[in-house]
Amino acid sequence: MKIGILGTGDVGRALGRGFIALGHEVKMGARSAGHEKALEWVAEVGEGASEGTFADAARFGEMLVMATLGVANPEAVEMAGAEAFAGKILIDATNPLDFSKGFPPTLAIAGNDSAGETLQRLLPRAKVVKAFNTAGNRHFFRPKFQDGPPDMFIAGNDAEAKNKVADLLADFGWGTVDIGDITGARALEAMCIAWVRACGGSGNWDRAFKFLRT
Amino acid sequence: MKIGILGTGDVGRALGRGFIALGHEVKMGARSAGHEKALEWVAEVGEGASEGTFADAARFGEMLVMATLGVANPEAVEMAGAEAFAGKILIDATNPLDFSKGFPPTLAIAGNDSAGETLQRLLPRAKVVKAFNTAGNRHFFRPKFQDGPPDMFIAGNDAEAKNKVADLLADFGWGTVDIGDITGARALEAMCIAWVRACGGSGNWDRAFKFLRT
Repeated sequence: MKIGILGTGDVGRALGRGFIALGHEVKMGARSAGHEKALEWVAEVGEGASEGTFADAARFGEMLVMATLGVANPEAVEMAGAEAFAGKILIDATNPLDFSKGFPPTLAIAGNDSAGETLQRLLPRAKVVKAFNTAGNRHFFRPKFQDGPPDMFIAGNDAEAKNKVADLLADFGWGTVDIGDITGARALEAMCIAWVRACGGSGNWDRAFKFLRT
Repeated sequence: MKIGILGTGDVGRALGRGFIALGHEVKMGARSAGHEKALEWVAEVGEGASEGTFADAARFGEMLVMATLGVANPEAVEMAGAEAFAGKILIDATNPLDFSKGFPPTLAIAGNDSAGETLQRLLPRAKVVKAFNTAGNRHFFRPKFQDGPPDMFIAGNDAEAKNKVADLLADFGWGTVDIGDITGARALEAMCIAWVRACGGSGNWDRAFKFLRT
């Protein structure tokens, strides 16, 4: 499958490596083509990897991933052009983190709204699925934990899109816990804060949520 | 130890059973003494159990537990009298759930505030520790899960109080994940929403969070 990733940070690069390892083609998009980190990533992963603008990545992908800084999502969407998202699954891996008061961060969008809902409102024809936002990017692909595998919590309005993301998560090595429509993004973005605070407080960032069964 | 529990719902009763099983004395408080559910609970658990008003329970306990409906906390505190909480650990097991729009519930207090912070502001001399709010009450005591034991996420301003709650959680059969000061209650109350939505969506309420290690 062709995957377009918007964002060249650690999250986008880690997801891109996973997609490439699974045999997908990935175009990583940035504000402008030839972005240093995108070029580095393409050189690192090799076959199947390419880079370009946000618009290039959004047009290229049959499935898209939002991996910008969460507070920059609206700008990235505008640069990419809403039309390129229409009818496609858009995995929203972002968190609207506000570090203006230092560590721990808070959420710039919270309460009765979330970055996930904001994205779905901006792109009503995209199938936004919140995923990969409650885990550390170094464990995105084939995570190895004691008592594992961990579970990824997801939310979105389109059941079929969530099923496809669950299949993808299984390929990546994760269980999936569906918490319903996109308003669940409020809880998932807050879970990111719990993860960051727990890891930051203990100094151990190699932690991941699992949702146990009896 | 003497434990005072404010609230006669499922959460308070389940915690009370756990404390009694561990050999503690428990007084369950309600709006008025002789509350039907409190009397039933005392009859059920027997030795070490007693009941009374919110004020009776708050004065009785060396450690206190808030187990009312989250949105009713301020009223219960006022009825109990702030003085009775001074210097004591107050476990806040509540969630400010709003079911006014049906299922799934939302949070009546969210964003840049939480029920836990509200409680700490109301009771500046109490040592509020958010705990037991991200798990189902039927698994509070000696939980048995595959790949278990599960972890309880806690937050609070007083490190010594959190250590004591962690010891208590170990007695109850839980691991503890400390996510820092009481502002972490925002994330923990949102995690309750994730739990409720995941369980409600699947129809399986026998689920619990664990925080895996590599």
